Amino acid sequence: MPQNIYDQDDFFEKYITLARQAKGLPGAREWPQLQTFLPNLDGLHVLDLGCGFGWFARFARENGAASVRAIDFSQNMLDTAQRMTHDEKIIYERADLDELILPENQYNVVFSSLAFHYLINLPSLIKEISKSLKSSGRLVFSIEHPIYTAPSNPTFLVDEEDGKRKREIWPLNDYRVEGPRTTKWFVEGVQKQHRTVGSYINILLANSFQLTNFIEWLPTKEDLKEYPEAEKDVIRPKFLLLGATKP
Amino acid sequence: MPQNIYDQDDFFEKYITLARQAKGLPGAREWPQLQTFLPNLDGLHVLDLGCGFGWFARFARENGAASVRAIDFSQNMLDTAQRMTHDEKIIYERADLDELILPENQYNVVFSSLAFHYLINLPSLIKEISKSLKSSGRLVFSIEHPIYTAPSNPTFLVDEEDGKRKREIWPLNDYRVEGPRTTKWFVEGVQKQHRTVGSYINILLANSFQLTNFIEWLPTKEDLKEYPEAEKDVIRPKFLLLGATKP
Repeated sequence: MPQNIYDQDDFFEKYITLARQAKGLPGAREWPQLQTFLPNLDGLHVLDLGCGFGWFARFARENGAASVRAIDFSQNMLDTAQRMTHDEKIIYERADLDELILPENQYNVVFSSLAFHYLINLPSLIKEISKSLKSSGRLVFSIEHPIYTAPSNPTFLVDEEDGKRKREIWPLNDYRVEGPRTTKWFVEGVQKQHRTVGSYINILLANSFQLTNFIEWLPTKEDLKEYPEAEKDVIRPKFLLLGATKP
Repeated sequence: MPQNIYDQDDFFEKYITLARQAKGLPGAREWPQLQTFLPNLDGLHVLDLGCGFGWFARFARENGAASVRAIDFSQNMLDTAQRMTHDEKIIYERADLDELILPENQYNVVFSSLAFHYLINLPSLIKEISKSLKSSGRLVFSIEHPIYTAPSNPTFLVDEEDGKRKREIWPLNDYRVEGPRTTKWFVEGVQKQHRTVGSYINILLANSFQLTNFIEWLPTKEDLKEYPEAEKDVIRPKFLLLGATKP
């Protein structure tokens, strides 16, 4: 079972101020690229894993999805999602993604935004997703990039040793050491699970997925005008976006 | 045109002392895993790009390959390879991989060990490779991992700020900034080309390859006994191994 930080009130109060929660999908800088991995949703059955406030669930329905099953582990998230949603074709449900069992051959699209890096049993979930997708079904998800999750002390340092210029550097270590990382994010003690890029890709390949999309979200000059906070993402990627097809 | 460091005598004299040159494939710690990406070579036509001393070319013939075309940019390399080879089915050839034009529908396997991270025109080469592979043909290659090539100053630092323990860290920066990196490797001024993991994968996908294998070579405890020098690879990966199939 992953930590349920989103139901911790001191965290939640700060978390909801993020642009990606306050504004929804347009407030998430990686969304324009993640969106390109999706098929035309018209008439499709969609599963959203880690649905948060339901921004994607409502987007899917606005774009013609026949139904959306939207799952989150946090009651805070689901309560807010429910208040923002007036659509009987979106079913919200509380569940632990580490323990989830899915029906066979049910969905056309499985979507997940920034949830999988909290999971301990990701291989088990990906196996369930593979089973639950119809033929030619799509899995589209974003995670925190393994370069971002790896360090034991994930804060930028200034390298003084370089005579030519002071460089901000990302103190990468323990890349090989998969498992929990405890960091400060609004509050102390937020727990994530680090996996290598290779592990994410190989979990997909081991479950018969064909990798179709792989974007390390990295800002262009235009992005930097719109999202000045993305300046650090030039130094090291923060988000990894993946798309895969079940044959 | 990439730098031809292998024809620089002061570099070459030191380079040939490496275990992977002196002992061949068994001296390369990533070889056991890279080898698993290859099909049974019996009767296959093989192209080896950046063949070095021809270790792989001879391995392919010993394992039944019908022919091997082995290309390198360095005359030093090719002279040594030729001296070590007595096999008319291995054809050595000098060419710049950045300018290479390949025949259509010719090879079953294209192999490359630690050469592609020197190339400026990799997209053009991958397009040529895709063209030159027969249906169901395999591309198997290793590169220096983008985490390894990215930093402007690629030497380990000790992070003194962590009170609990002194940590060796890899000073990652400029990940987004693709292009030349000049480092010291035996001699000053060795030039490589940094690309992101995403770029390598997307160059393959854009040329209709299906990604089948992706291993960030990272040592296990057993590996560390055999290759003590791989200790740093726990902190950050040095080699990336990829396999792809042309449908």
